[in-house]
Amino acid sequence: MKVGYIGLGIMGRACAANLLRAGHTLSVYARRPESAAELVTQGARVYASPAELAREVEIVISNVSDTPDVEEVMLGEHGVIHGAHPGLIAIDMSTIKPLAARDIAAKLAAAGVDFLDAPVSGGEIGAINGTLTIMVGGKAAALDTARPVLEAMGKTITRIGDSGAGQVAKACNQIVVAVTIEAVAEAMALARACGVDPAPVREALLGGFAGSRVLDVHGQRIIDDNYAPGFKARLHQKDMGIVADTAAALGIRLDAASHAAELIQQLVAQGDGELDSSAIARLIASRRA
Amino acid sequence: MKVGYIGLGIMGRACAANLLRAGHTLSVYARRPESAAELVTQGARVYASPAELAREVEIVISNVSDTPDVEEVMLGEHGVIHGAHPGLIAIDMSTIKPLAARDIAAKLAAAGVDFLDAPVSGGEIGAINGTLTIMVGGKAAALDTARPVLEAMGKTITRIGDSGAGQVAKACNQIVVAVTIEAVAEAMALARACGVDPAPVREALLGGFAGSRVLDVHGQRIIDDNYAPGFKARLHQKDMGIVADTAAALGIRLDAASHAAELIQQLVAQGDGELDSSAIARLIASRRA
Repeated sequence: MKVGYIGLGIMGRACAANLLRAGHTLSVYARRPESAAELVTQGARVYASPAELAREVEIVISNVSDTPDVEEVMLGEHGVIHGAHPGLIAIDMSTIKPLAARDIAAKLAAAGVDFLDAPVSGGEIGAINGTLTIMVGGKAAALDTARPVLEAMGKTITRIGDSGAGQVAKACNQIVVAVTIEAVAEAMALARACGVDPAPVREALLGGFAGSRVLDVHGQRIIDDNYAPGFKARLHQKDMGIVADTAAALGIRLDAASHAAELIQQLVAQGDGELDSSAIARLIASRRA
Repeated sequence: MKVGYIGLGIMGRACAANLLRAGHTLSVYARRPESAAELVTQGARVYASPAELAREVEIVISNVSDTPDVEEVMLGEHGVIHGAHPGLIAIDMSTIKPLAARDIAAKLAAAGVDFLDAPVSGGEIGAINGTLTIMVGGKAAALDTARPVLEAMGKTITRIGDSGAGQVAKACNQIVVAVTIEAVAEAMALARACGVDPAPVREALLGGFAGSRVLDVHGQRIIDDNYAPGFKARLHQKDMGIVADTAAALGIRLDAASHAAELIQQLVAQGDGELDSSAIARLIASRRA
């Protein structure tokens, strides 16, 4: 298909390269032209604005930093909405506020554009290998059309529900990961405080009800005290801000998520935002009653 | 081997039956003789006290309710210690305080008895099927001798470290399970508050970094609002009390574990102690900011 990609950061470049590899016709827009250089040598065409790009493709995908960036790219003065044409599907792979995703979907729908929110998990490795988990909100028919394109970038593509539902699932994902890291870190801290080697504790627990990907991967990071990312604390902090904003807008209380977010915030505040977010284990291990 | 079993509750009876099935010679002691009735018809011999039982066997196992019960059975007036003889190994499969397990081990060692703390996870189903995860603290040589007996009851038998280390691993297990339940419950609560079906959220998250046994099993319980145990809240409450006591004795702070323990405590206080501990999801879903 004719696909346009907007936002060529680490994740975006890897996804766009997989689109080329899968045989799609790729056009790109990047604020910094040098981000597009390698893709251009591989056959991608560069456009001067999201609107111009959108005009020429069947599917336009954004992968940018935060809610305002997606709003700008989709709805701004030179945004995708100004390149609207019959059949255009817009997909956002960034992690943004679920309520904002719904709003963007409604505005694009009014211009005749189907919008899918499609945030991912799986990180840089998943993006490079094309094995991302993609959580999709929006119309089932639009997803059916876009599925071959998403399949070039991800392994598990799940339609969660209507617009915004993909972002809700991503928020849920970030809650579970953050709080489970805290759980594992407290367990490892207890073992060490008792003079017990945490390595066989991790091993034994992996076989039972305490078993998780977080215990497996982050448990090992905690044991090794090696917090090379992985998923950077400052990005997890941004995502936990989305969780907090969403909970506040809905009037619900998420105590465990709030507590984990405070630890991540503390980690970033002390200058460790580039470490993996599981480095909150250091804060937990240094606490005294 | 000649094995004695003390404490014939739901878990104990299932474990003892597996010992018989594996061809071990079984003797039992139970406070309530009727608990032993079925095992007796299968060939088990009944003794009048832990001391008398211990005198006649190579390995004596306890599986009782709480720390004081284990102390009574092992060290009390008619306890195992008074049946000490060369080569006797005492094993406790109850979940008790790690520091108490170390103390019991030291007192039995002074009487020439090797002690292994060997708490389990896997619940009633695991006990019946002989697939328990067994976390062992104590001398490696004693575990080598006892391993064929433990293998009749469990699938994964891990030596964590010296005396008490098995109980430390079990405490870690209960922290991770409790806090991960809270994580999953908050995620499901957020999805519902957003008007999103939690079932595809669980599905999507299972494939990624948020994936865990808790998300799989308890996530489904939360979606179904079906809290038939499983692992009863009042037992999880007891175990979280052990976590809190241990943390206090060591002077460390486990904020997430404390918060999960409060929720379980609240559940028990409102009369729901017989429900699965994942029923804390109901409390979480009913909270408002």
